[in-house]
Amino acid sequence: MALPHASPGQPLDVRPLGGRLSTGKTSALFKSNDLEVMRLVLVRGKSLPPHQVLGEITIHCLEGSLEVELDDKTVRLEPGELLFLTGGATHGVKALSDASALVTVALKS
Amino acid sequence: MALPHASPGQPLDVRPLGGRLSTGKTSALFKSNDLEVMRLVLVRGKSLPPHQVLGEITIHCLEGSLEVELDDKTVRLEPGELLFLTGGATHGVKALSDASALVTVALKS
Repeated sequence: MALPHASPGQPLDVRPLGGRLSTGKTSALFKSNDLEVMRLVLVRGKSLPPHQVLGEITIHCLEGSLEVELDDKTVRLEPGELLFLTGGATHGVKALSDASALVTVALKS
Repeated sequence: MALPHASPGQPLDVRPLGGRLSTGKTSALFKSNDLEVMRLVLVRGKSLPPHQVLGEITIHCLEGSLEVELDDKTVRLEPGELLFLTGGATHGVKALSDASALVTVALKS
C-alpha cells in the first residue's frame, strides 16, 4: 500500500518535534516495495511491548531517550544514535523521556 | 559482507559532524542482508554524479544543504529532511554547503 504522503522525490520533514513532542503521534512516513519508514513517538514511560518484524530495521533516535530491550541486553538510545537490528529480532522500546525516533523497516516480499 | 562496526544491537553515532565536517569522509555504517546504511559526506561544491542503485533508498540530510538531481526535477534537502527514491531512480547529489547525510539502501538479493 502506498501512503498518500509517500511520493518519491518529495522531501519529508523528520526534524525533531520539539514542543509538539508531548502531543505527537506515531505516524507512517511512507511504505513502498522495499522500505517502510515511520516516526515513532513515545511520551515518557510509555512503551512498545516486545515484538518482531520479518525484515531488518534501524531505529534512529531523533530526540529524547529510548531504552530498547533485546533478547540478551538492554540498549539506551540518545538523539543521533542509530540501532540496527536483524530481521526477526525481538525488541521492545520504552521512552525514558518524551522521545521520537525514525524507524526504517526492510520489507520482505 | 558484514562490516566490522556493523554489530546488530550496538548504537552507532550518526550525529552531525559539526566542526569535523570539512575533513570528514563518506563511510559505511553497516551492510547486512537487507539494508546498507552509510554516511555521505560532501564538502561545498562537491557532487556525486548521477547514478542508480537497484533497491529503494532514503537520503536523510543531517547537516548542510544538498541538491538532489532527479530525472524530472531537482530537490533541495535541508537538515532534518528525508528523501525517498524508488529503486533504479537516477540521482545525482551536490553539496550546496558542507553537508552530511544518512543514506539507507534496501538491498536486492
